[in-house]
Amino acid sequence: MQHNLEQTISLLSRTPAALNALLRDLPEGWTSRNEGDNTMSAFDVVGHLINGERTNWMPRARMILQFGEAREFEPFDRWKQIRDSQGKSLGQLLDEFARLRSESLNDLRALNLRPEDLERRGRHPALGVVTLSELLATWAAHDLTHLHQISRIMAHQYREAVGPWSVNLGVLKCTGHSSP
Amino acid sequence: MQHNLEQTISLLSRTPAALNALLRDLPEGWTSRNEGDNTMSAFDVVGHLINGERTNWMPRARMILQFGEAREFEPFDRWKQIRDSQGKSLGQLLDEFARLRSESLNDLRALNLRPEDLERRGRHPALGVVTLSELLATWAAHDLTHLHQISRIMAHQYREAVGPWSVNLGVLKCTGHSSP
Repeated sequence: MQHNLEQTISLLSRTPAALNALLRDLPEGWTSRNEGDNTMSAFDVVGHLINGERTNWMPRARMILQFGEAREFEPFDRWKQIRDSQGKSLGQLLDEFARLRSESLNDLRALNLRPEDLERRGRHPALGVVTLSELLATWAAHDLTHLHQISRIMAHQYREAVGPWSVNLGVLKCTGHSSP
Repeated sequence: MQHNLEQTISLLSRTPAALNALLRDLPEGWTSRNEGDNTMSAFDVVGHLINGERTNWMPRARMILQFGEAREFEPFDRWKQIRDSQGKSLGQLLDEFARLRSESLNDLRALNLRPEDLERRGRHPALGVVTLSELLATWAAHDLTHLHQISRIMAHQYREAVGPWSVNLGVLKCTGHSSP
């Protein structure tokens, strides 16, 4: 499937409500546990998504439009959200993510991007030349990789509890890792 | 984490709203495409979850309580929902899943299961002896395996569109398969 801006926006606009419906007021046994050392809990993932809204997606889109390949993106500090989320509740993080995402999408729509804008290029510090189209498609796929990760983290908590059914549950065999 | 009935119910009660928030009115490019021959689309997965409510979870729980190990579960026909979903819209399937899940959970609560009931045993046609506790934990993990699968199916549609970022997106590397 080719990248389609309206399709991307339609997905991006749904993620906060989907995470809200799944996670809000869920017992902490599901939301605060992780998959072992140096892994994220569902709580941590929501913090990471907030951090992405603040420092990654729209800031990089603006940088492509303003500087093109002349200026590299700022590297993304994926552990920053651990510090920023301290002392907050999951409900607060879900509210914050919904608000920031809504603002990001308002800003994105206000750019009135034309097809030729989507082909404009920027420079990623590790991946090299990328297009605005690729950045926006990645924003949507990044939501999906973290929904995928959250479902895997939560299923992991019942790894023993499911007994012999573990052999039938694909989520317990997933070795995909969700780098931001 | 040990199986905890309230924790299981709290997850099971949220899945229909989470899928609704994610999928309702999303462009068909996201919801009707699959990952290749003999794989499911997001639409197919919702049909599969409906089929599970009808023929799998509560019917098997009742069978354990009524017959114990004396009677094997009916095998689960995982392609039945393909036939049952024909001609329906995704919105109709989401409504049907929400209604059936709500009924299932009312039935489950009405059983007033005690800790000793959860240790009762039944017989799975392929996996052998299983407990009611394992069946109920699997019901929750099965929701999660299909949320995991849906996010992977949808991300697959942007596999090319994300360009060089594909190396960073764990969901595109997932080889876990989601058997029912």
